[in-house]
Amino acid sequence: MSDLTREEIAAGKKDGQATESLLREGERLDDLQREGLKLIQNPDWFCFGMDAVLLSAFARVGKGQVCADLGCGNGVIPILLAGRTEGARFCGLEIQADIADMARRSVRYNSLEDKVNIITGDIKEATSIFGAASFDVVTSNPPYLAQSRGLTNEAGHKALARHELACTLEDVVAAAAGLLRPGGHFFLVHRPFRLTEIICSMREHRLEPKRMRLVCPYVDKEPAMVLIEGTRGGNTGITVEKPLIIYERENVYTPEVMRLYDM
Amino acid sequence: MSDLTREEIAAGKKDGQATESLLREGERLDDLQREGLKLIQNPDWFCFGMDAVLLSAFARVGKGQVCADLGCGNGVIPILLAGRTEGARFCGLEIQADIADMARRSVRYNSLEDKVNIITGDIKEATSIFGAASFDVVTSNPPYLAQSRGLTNEAGHKALARHELACTLEDVVAAAAGLLRPGGHFFLVHRPFRLTEIICSMREHRLEPKRMRLVCPYVDKEPAMVLIEGTRGGNTGITVEKPLIIYERENVYTPEVMRLYDM
Repeated sequence: MSDLTREEIAAGKKDGQATESLLREGERLDDLQREGLKLIQNPDWFCFGMDAVLLSAFARVGKGQVCADLGCGNGVIPILLAGRTEGARFCGLEIQADIADMARRSVRYNSLEDKVNIITGDIKEATSIFGAASFDVVTSNPPYLAQSRGLTNEAGHKALARHELACTLEDVVAAAAGLLRPGGHFFLVHRPFRLTEIICSMREHRLEPKRMRLVCPYVDKEPAMVLIEGTRGGNTGITVEKPLIIYERENVYTPEVMRLYDM
Repeated sequence: MSDLTREEIAAGKKDGQATESLLREGERLDDLQREGLKLIQNPDWFCFGMDAVLLSAFARVGKGQVCADLGCGNGVIPILLAGRTEGARFCGLEIQADIADMARRSVRYNSLEDKVNIITGDIKEATSIFGAASFDVVTSNPPYLAQSRGLTNEAGHKALARHELACTLEDVVAAAAGLLRPGGHFFLVHRPFRLTEIICSMREHRLEPKRMRLVCPYVDKEPAMVLIEGTRGGNTGITVEKPLIIYERENVYTPEVMRLYDM
């Protein structure tokens, strides 16, 4: 168990309470570059990437709304949404107890205990854990790879975060549909390769796709991610937004991405 | 009935056979800017647009393959594909007899009678007209607007070309699925607003979406069209290509579009 470093205390804690050890061995404290938020991560497990940041920016959370994040990992999405939006409450659901514990410590580090709640549990039981139709917004940055695809011998935390071992895309969509009130919104980030499954599964579960955005690394490269919003019980018809381009040229973000990161 | 003008003969007919009157009153002869092909159009009816050109470029037709175009209008797609690919035979199906007649005259004008055949008929009867599983490739640039959407008092040819009066998206997809052999390919151009319906309908009819491309007027504008390819009985998984951008700046096409038009 290691204490926070002096620099971390200086950078993150304004009120001088940072005497408690929230970091465990092998973990590090990363700057979310947003509202002064920090995140505890373990580089041996799985660290958040740009997909989580982009999903948080793509999601729309109204004042006082209640949100769930399915498969929250280290808690990056609930923490970012709690910082950025006027939502009232953010629940993160994570199946791996040690990762959920790390997420809880990040919540404490950011003094967000009043707004963010991390629950250890299985997405497939989300409706019985939280109750049906109990959320205005559900977000998810689930494992991208179908169980059978590209599964190497990587084990444990990383494998669960990348491969559909604990839950499938279908499980995530079904859970979101169960958790959302009618008219509630689902926000998903995924790989374009799975687009057909995403759209058909959402429609099947009455989460009508209403907004979509492709994310391309460069203007002349194929998309690496897709952001998609569905509305519980919504009408047919989807707005496909202009592509989100990440880099203007090598190592230089586009102005839109710079704004997302408050640069 | 009017004869071809001197300029039209000069521009289009190399072999001096242009004595026969293929143009009717109100019609004009347009340059397809591809392989010297020309197209008879009636500006009071409906003229082909960039969507047909982009679909023709997006479609892949192998040597000796047999292709159908559903709702071929003035025949632009079969004529372009006959000019550009090594396909053996191109059938256009058009419900409006006068437009089918115009398409036939364009076929004659381009001396493509051996390869292109225009049939007057209803998409909903395509399988009984042509026979099931009789094509390698099916293309379609169907009406974009659901019957209930934005229907003005425009009448006749234009209304049928724009609104789903004679056939719905579902009818087009069902016909394509019926006409294609297993492993055959369907190529569609449509509006992004209908993307969910397109993808779900294709999957329902076992035309698995395999390739998709959004078409944006400018790099920073939302897409105006979507090009999509499906494979009869294909596996799950779609390649989303980089967006196709039309204009570099006002009135200046991007190099990719310049190449499509042989400029």
